[in-house]
Amino acid sequence: MFLETIRSPQDLKKIPRDKLPELAAEVRSRIIGVVSKTGGHLASSLGAVELAIAVHYCFQAPEDIIIWDVGHQAYAHKILTGRNERFDTLRQKDGLSGFPCRTESVYDPFTTGHSSTAVSLAFGCAAARDLRETHEKVVAIVGDGALTGGMCFEALNHVGHLGKDMLVILNSNDMAIAPSVGALSTYLNKIISRPIYNRFKDARDAFLKQRLGRIGPRLQKLADKFEELLKGLIVPGIFFEEMGFKYFGPLDGHNTTLLIDTLQNISHLKGPLLLHVITKKGKGFAPAENQPVRFHGTTCFDIASGEVAAPEEKPQASFTDVFSAALQALAQKDKKIAAITAAMPEGTGLTSFAKVFPERFFDVGIAEQHAVGFAAGLARAGLKPYVAVYSTFLQRAYDQIVEEVCLQNLGVVLCLDRAGIVGEDGPTHHGMFDISYLRHLPNMTVMAPADKEDLEAMLAFASECPTPVAIRYPRGTAPCRRENFAVAPVRQGRAEILLDGGVATILALGSMVDVAVDAADILSREGVRVTLVNARFAKPIDEGLVLKLYDATEALVTVEEGVMAGGFGSGVLEALRADGRLFTSAKKVKCLGLPVSFITFGKRKDLLKQYGLCAEGIAAAVREALGR
Amino acid sequence: MFLETIRSPQDLKKIPRDKLPELAAEVRSRIIGVVSKTGGHLASSLGAVELAIAVHYCFQAPEDIIIWDVGHQAYAHKILTGRNERFDTLRQKDGLSGFPCRTESVYDPFTTGHSSTAVSLAFGCAAARDLRETHEKVVAIVGDGALTGGMCFEALNHVGHLGKDMLVILNSNDMAIAPSVGALSTYLNKIISRPIYNRFKDARDAFLKQRLGRIGPRLQKLADKFEELLKGLIVPGIFFEEMGFKYFGPLDGHNTTLLIDTLQNISHLKGPLLLHVITKKGKGFAPAENQPVRFHGTTCFDIASGEVAAPEEKPQASFTDVFSAALQALAQKDKKIAAITAAMPEGTGLTSFAKVFPERFFDVGIAEQHAVGFAAGLARAGLKPYVAVYSTFLQRAYDQIVEEVCLQNLGVVLCLDRAGIVGEDGPTHHGMFDISYLRHLPNMTVMAPADKEDLEAMLAFASECPTPVAIRYPRGTAPCRRENFAVAPVRQGRAEILLDGGVATILALGSMVDVAVDAADILSREGVRVTLVNARFAKPIDEGLVLKLYDATEALVTVEEGVMAGGFGSGVLEALRADGRLFTSAKKVKCLGLPVSFITFGKRKDLLKQYGLCAEGIAAAVREALGR
Repeated sequence: MFLETIRSPQDLKKIPRDKLPELAAEVRSRIIGVVSKTGGHLASSLGAVELAIAVHYCFQAPEDIIIWDVGHQAYAHKILTGRNERFDTLRQKDGLSGFPCRTESVYDPFTTGHSSTAVSLAFGCAAARDLRETHEKVVAIVGDGALTGGMCFEALNHVGHLGKDMLVILNSNDMAIAPSVGALSTYLNKIISRPIYNRFKDARDAFLKQRLGRIGPRLQKLADKFEELLKGLIVPGIFFEEMGFKYFGPLDGHNTTLLIDTLQNISHLKGPLLLHVITKKGKGFAPAENQPVRFHGTTCFDIASGEVAAPEEKPQASFTDVFSAALQALAQKDKKIAAITAAMPEGTGLTSFAKVFPERFFDVGIAEQHAVGFAAGLARAGLKPYVAVYSTFLQRAYDQIVEEVCLQNLGVVLCLDRAGIVGEDGPTHHGMFDISYLRHLPNMTVMAPADKEDLEAMLAFASECPTPVAIRYPRGTAPCRRENFAVAPVRQGRAEILLDGGVATILALGSMVDVAVDAADILSREGVRVTLVNARFAKPIDEGLVLKLYDATEALVTVEEGVMAGGFGSGVLEALRADGRLFTSAKKVKCLGLPVSFITFGKRKDLLKQYGLCAEGIAAAVREALGR
Repeated sequence: MFLETIRSPQDLKKIPRDKLPELAAEVRSRIIGVVSKTGGHLASSLGAVELAIAVHYCFQAPEDIIIWDVGHQAYAHKILTGRNERFDTLRQKDGLSGFPCRTESVYDPFTTGHSSTAVSLAFGCAAARDLRETHEKVVAIVGDGALTGGMCFEALNHVGHLGKDMLVILNSNDMAIAPSVGALSTYLNKIISRPIYNRFKDARDAFLKQRLGRIGPRLQKLADKFEELLKGLIVPGIFFEEMGFKYFGPLDGHNTTLLIDTLQNISHLKGPLLLHVITKKGKGFAPAENQPVRFHGTTCFDIASGEVAAPEEKPQASFTDVFSAALQALAQKDKKIAAITAAMPEGTGLTSFAKVFPERFFDVGIAEQHAVGFAAGLARAGLKPYVAVYSTFLQRAYDQIVEEVCLQNLGVVLCLDRAGIVGEDGPTHHGMFDISYLRHLPNMTVMAPADKEDLEAMLAFASECPTPVAIRYPRGTAPCRRENFAVAPVRQGRAEILLDGGVATILALGSMVDVAVDAADILSREGVRVTLVNARFAKPIDEGLVLKLYDATEALVTVEEGVMAGGFGSGVLEALRADGRLFTSAKKVKCLGLPVSFITFGKRKDLLKQYGLCAEGIAAAVREALGR
């Protein structure tokens, strides 16, 4: 057992090289054991075990800066940097984060979670190092899927231009979350499979490996000339070479000896280096190797079979499921409907759509900016594009929503999944800002469905709407409309009254409606009758109804699963203020929502409760507003 | 005079090819004549005259879709597409927009203004065309500067992958607004200057030009093989070829015959095509050729000398000037300070900083996402980065502000120039959303200086602040502090009282403070004394003071140069609501700001007045709030 001896990367360096494969097996087993119980990002992390070992074997973290892009693949890194003992608290409240986390360890220079950022961050560290005149190494480890993200390209372009010392390790597994797409992906595959090129590369790599430490500047110049010549002849990693990087590879990313030899040799070279390693997503765990998409992010599973533990009760459809089925049904009737994902067909529920309507399905890769710009083009040319994306990732396309969609006033439909608290993925992934970053945009309509029926109706409504629409819905089960409540047709900017004639009004948005129904029950049992509104629209707010209910009831409580600053509740305040009603009486308005602070990971339900976004919390707010 | 005969591209096609250079001269002269009076984007537009002629000669707009990236270079396009007569209304109220504008002409498929979007938009149109089974051509015209924008790369990656028919024309003039930077720029220069490669290319281009219309599929296959071979040997445009494009060029972009021959030949080819043309920014007007940065966007000038008309009075320093000098002074004392621009050293006032501190100045190219990520890296490694960027362009880095800056709680300083109404550049450029897209972000401080002294104090404050700071300031003159008002030290979240003891309170933010002083004068002459607050912070709002003044005065008016939804005024409402004070009295709160709609172009002062953001508008709001 080597793993038990490792409390820091210094301990790792004491292990003989030839024993490292054994260590890798132990790390892998530890990851599988824990993730089978906690759930988590399994497949990517299994693919990067040897890479994590080699990197920490060769570099001196935390002095040397090592940045794992996204962080889906960082479990081995966590285990090797003093967090093995706590590793079984992964993604649990007060436990280890599922991502690199700057407040958790000095070995995590940044809290990460969004893709394609590592080269920018690392290059900032490298530039600062040169100004400070220190000598630490800087390493960014980037998957081939993340390469398609424009930010990564912007960074490579800058690094190649300034030529500062840093190492980018490109981990090619031909997968982002789903299989990688894009011309660059094809190109990388060509590199990997081009035999003549590989032969030359082997020769060059061997040459470098053996000599580089010992040769003088004149020989180095000769070697450079030779390299330049080879480059012209056999196009080795020319894409990266033309971007100003020295390209090495491709290497077998599961061969620790090869990785360590190469890292030790090239880490003394000057300028921007790119080491291309090939790994297998899910490596070492057959179910994950065979189903890397399924095991990208997984819930608990049985190690022997790879089967996910059957839920105790028959699972209800999630909002994602509802979206998936409803969009497909609409597309059946309307040939103009197209669906777009940024590398997440599974997560957003488009896998089946892609099969049924392959010509109307577009996976643009990790490229949210382009996804929205492309959708604007489709809409301009007469199609009806639905962009399905997680709320947190749509942040990256904010400017495109403003300029390409809203300013052009095009009928693009943005479907924001995982809006609100996502749970175990934590602060980088909570979709808590979307109402606030969309509500101020001209021409934009922002909706949030209360339940399955609402989402279906909103998707249909959007299909007829010639202007920009965003629909936000949370992670998890979509409640069905309660028996005693009918479903009113969705009309632009109109809320729906579920309960009338109360002493106080609850204006609930989206996911909070179902919770507010329970709050109304609690209050009702206490003899307090409330008026309950399914707001449906965060923009435009149903001002007429808001004003009417402000007059008709004694207090008003808004509830939303989003940050309160600039959110739905603020919109209600703005409407009351504009009208002037706010200043004619002593009526209380209370707003419930998320605070302006980053929210940790944990169970979605627990986190919501913590911020009063539960039946008892809403009931308490109503009591307080009524002064009872 | 050919130009007079052209009312649409159809008329253009009647002109004999050999006369097109004469037409180009006429168009050029028209552009120079008008822009010398109206100001505008001169140099880029002069560079693209022949290109606009050739494109409209060869394609059938508006059926064929032609998209000019950014739109800085589209004046010739406007003149050739029925807008010559109105061209002297350029950038004037109710006149022609300075950018392509979808509501102005069917020849402008999109309203543009932000960089690097054309390939995404065009590809959306191409994909829609293929689904609709129509046959229009789709052309995106992109400058080499815009290529560095990540969105453009994301789009190229997608286009190359799907292989649909479309043409990208890469217009290389080695300039964005300032000279292009980045590894890709170096690469493009290498292409242009590589003689052996050009010789081969000439042969291939000649071959294609002569034969392509007439050869059958078998010959085509042979030609393709030949091409593949050549590719391996001489690396022609390999970067684009590896991205899945057929690369043609580089061509002289001022030779109409060559351009038309080539466009006509290649436009029949299938798949993604990239035509690389070389142009000179400012072509045909010596002052602009010699000073392309100065003449990128210019005010009125004398055609004979190229001199800008001397302003009637000595110009006061702009906020940009104040920023420029103050940051330089701070950097003199503090070696940790670094400055970052995304391709706009002139516009943001960093040219002089770059000369004095070249090693601490970073121009990352058109790459706002990377600019912010890179700054986060610098801050993490101990530097103090100031990112100077126009408010509207920072929209593109919203996600990086959330994830890389705020979540990491790093001391990055975002300096948002052109915040609020920019004037003649219009809706794509007004910086009206920043308060609303920043105010909900945890750890972020948002400031707006009232005047020169405030901006200096805020930049100094930011240098000591370990957490994220944004400072927004408008286009134009920075007022100096009025004689009778002292400057209080800037303290976190604290507003500054300029006038006290009034019956009503004006809470003014940033650019509106100076205007509010005049409003206070107007009111004072009417016997209404107001309390006037320089809010300084949009986040955190000085809640203590707001509550105190709410109690102490009869009404409260907020004023900001930004969209009202989710803005500063909303923040004040949120604070009053949270406290509960809002519901204890019948006091009026009025909020002034910009509406949730896109605002046209025109003079900044006129536009502000239109929305009541002037002394009389503020005074009227106070009167109304007081019921007088």
